[in-house]
Amino acid sequence: MRPVITLTTDFGLDDPFVGIMKGVILNIAPDVEIIDITHNIEPQNIIQAALVLNASYSWFPRKTVHIVIVDPGVGGKRRPMVVQSKFQFFVGPDNGVLTPVLDFKNRFYQLTNKKYFLKNVSNTFHGRDIFAAVAAWITTGIAPSKMGPRILKPEFLTLPQPRIKEGTIQGKIIYKDRFGNLTTNISAELINEKFPSFDKIKIQTGKQIINGLSKAYNKIKLGEPGAIINSWNQLEIFCRQADAAKKLKLKLGQSITLKPVLHPTNKRISPIIKK
Amino acid sequence: MRPVITLTTDFGLDDPFVGIMKGVILNIAPDVEIIDITHNIEPQNIIQAALVLNASYSWFPRKTVHIVIVDPGVGGKRRPMVVQSKFQFFVGPDNGVLTPVLDFKNRFYQLTNKKYFLKNVSNTFHGRDIFAAVAAWITTGIAPSKMGPRILKPEFLTLPQPRIKEGTIQGKIIYKDRFGNLTTNISAELINEKFPSFDKIKIQTGKQIINGLSKAYNKIKLGEPGAIINSWNQLEIFCRQADAAKKLKLKLGQSITLKPVLHPTNKRISPIIKK
Amino acid sequence: MRPVITLTTDFGLDDPFVGIMKGVILNIAPDVEIIDITHNIEPQNIIQAALVLNASYSWFPRKTVHIVIVDPGVGGKRRPMVVQSKFQFFVGPDNGVLTPVLDFKNRFYQLTNKKYFLKNVSNTFHGRDIFAAVAAWITTGIAPSKMGPRILKPEFLTLPQPRIKEGTIQGKIIYKDRFGNLTTNISAELINEKFPSFDKIKIQTGKQIINGLSKAYNKIKLGEPGAIINSWNQLEIFCRQADAAKKLKLKLGQSITLKPVLHPTNKRISPIIKK
Repeated sequence: MRPVITLTTDFGLDDPFVGIMKGVILNIAPDVEIIDITHNIEPQNIIQAALVLNASYSWFPRKTVHIVIVDPGVGGKRRPMVVQSKFQFFVGPDNGVLTPVLDFKNRFYQLTNKKYFLKNVSNTFHGRDIFAAVAAWITTGIAPSKMGPRILKPEFLTLPQPRIKEGTIQGKIIYKDRFGNLTTNISAELINEKFPSFDKIKIQTGKQIINGLSKAYNKIKLGEPGAIINSWNQLEIFCRQADAAKKLKLKLGQSITLKPVLHPTNKRISPIIKK
Repeated sequence: MRPVITLTTDFGLDDPFVGIMKGVILNIAPDVEIIDITHNIEPQNIIQAALVLNASYSWFPRKTVHIVIVDPGVGGKRRPMVVQSKFQFFVGPDNGVLTPVLDFKNRFYQLTNKKYFLKNVSNTFHGRDIFAAVAAWITTGIAPSKMGPRILKPEFLTLPQPRIKEGTIQGKIIYKDRFGNLTTNISAELINEKFPSFDKIKIQTGKQIINGLSKAYNKIKLGEPGAIINSWNQLEIFCRQADAAKKLKLKLGQSITLKPVLHPTNKRISPIIKK
Repeated sequence: MRPVITLTTDFGLDDPFVGIMKGVILNIAPDVEIIDITHNIEPQNIIQAALVLNASYSWFPRKTVHIVIVDPGVGGKRRPMVVQSKFQFFVGPDNGVLTPVLDFKNRFYQLTNKKYFLKNVSNTFHGRDIFAAVAAWITTGIAPSKMGPRILKPEFLTLPQPRIKEGTIQGKIIYKDRFGNLTTNISAELINEKFPSFDKIKIQTGKQIINGLSKAYNKIKLGEPGAIINSWNQLEIFCRQADAAKKLKLKLGQSITLKPVLHPTNKRISPIIKK
């Protein structure tokens, strides 16, 4: 089974940065399969990269090494690090970008052992000189514990958490995809937990009120707004075959409120698709 | 020989969707070579994806599995399908996107056997939960006939066909590439068949008249418009080292007329490069 | 060790051109690892492609075959060529795009042997019909000398060279990356050579004056401009966590002047990071 390295960066696809990193990897570990998650993270947007990591890593094989680089502090004091979980590895700067895997069950190591860096480390491109090289060495079987000392207090991002208030769930829009679909920080699990039974759910965001969760995009009329549990198991606002962000004028950070509606005479149902 | 899977989608490269599909594939079939055709199909543009499939599939090795996903009906009634041709496989929704390979010599199967899906199928991302998984299983040798029942009447797109009228060929612009070159639905074969001999060909589109077919882009002056038989063996309108779509104000769907010009005293020649 | 082919083109990622080239390669050489450097070279910008090649090729393994295609003269008189260096191979049109490897120690061959082309060569897509096929054959061990006759006078680009004038170095901005960072044609080596000792360096470009070279981006205040030796070992103008091109209104081709400042009472230091 070929080892896999994934790449998530804000390097874009116009410049040779990503290709150069792949050259470095293949020089050290010629049999690695390199998979791009995305290189179009908004420049320096650490939260966006953390959300992308969170959505993607678990779909990859065991022993995959994920490189995640959004690194405005490159060349400065922030520590380069590797996270070792039970199944996979994560390499990137210790600036919060690896927050989704900063679980207490995992181990974190600072990258200090220059044996696994390129010979000359620049001050502007640790993706090439440190992270690509270290990730490649890990696929060859070098243990992260050889890379440097344990980090006990890594940097965490505070991701916005939904709140429960007066019987409603209050969340935020945290991600916008290519189609203009808007993912919120409200999970299916949270809705199930807080609203174990209801007839309908009322969703309010901006001036928009959406009644009920759809089971599929095409249950809604063309161009009309809807809400759905999406492939990340989160509540998503969409417009059918249209760009919800543009059409509903919604932005990242926008508040969203969920309110259950009960009709006492009806059988109470939960529309959430359970795993 | 490593199995090959290609991907053609409207998922874009900003989000982790494509990377996640690749993770799913590598979990099932670790030795697959995954090739991106493009992920920048205009959202929900089924015709564009069908044209891209038509231009690309035959250049790939035998047994390649092509995944093509433009899927506005995801989670609804449209059937997921696999097409088996003599040489290759094609996986995607039964919404017309696979029209170029819906040949009566091929076999079409609905994807119903959940054994080859991921365990939990979402209503918004069949690319991950059905198509990537099924394609990976096919590369391991699972026959499409194990995937579900035959589809006898798949959905077809009606691609615009050129017409012959009063000794002219009347076609349309169907594809615009990065350079602003405009491919028409008029093939070299059709021109050869309808105009077996002529001295010159007159091409009219919008307000533009182009006299003659060029053998190469650089037979035309810089910035000037020309016509050529392109790499898809179709008539193409271009401006040398400039964007013809912008410069000539031509759009997809724009009509184009070809008229042969005969000089009775000249030797009649056909300028089309024959295979 | 799997052979590696890299791709640098102006084909973009919207059209199937790049995918088709990869299909051609895999048909001839199924075990090749294909790495994209970039396909977003500005259409027909030969200099940009040459700079990208220059920055990237040396990071790849021995025997890598680099395909570089920016080819406005496709189908015309320009010669297709392969360059053989001691370690690697380079395939592309003889129009200057391979200038960085046109070293007198290397050998250049015109591609004329149709045995290594696809059967039908179009006039618009030599990337598919010639360059992809030839590169794939080279990875299988076919010597470039079998591909055609030696080229003795290949086409060179004249890349802008910095000048020394009245004790200053006068250069130009030659490359802008995704972040808006601006690479100049002034190398760390040149600064070290011309200014073996100084206290401070004064950098002027447009209306902007920058005092001193930074050792890392974050030595500068947020949004403020700075100068640094970047990962290509060239002088770069940046704004910390901002787009220097936009913020300082600097464009490609903009002049830049370096002037050493000496304080006679101070110890003279050189701030350049030496390899």
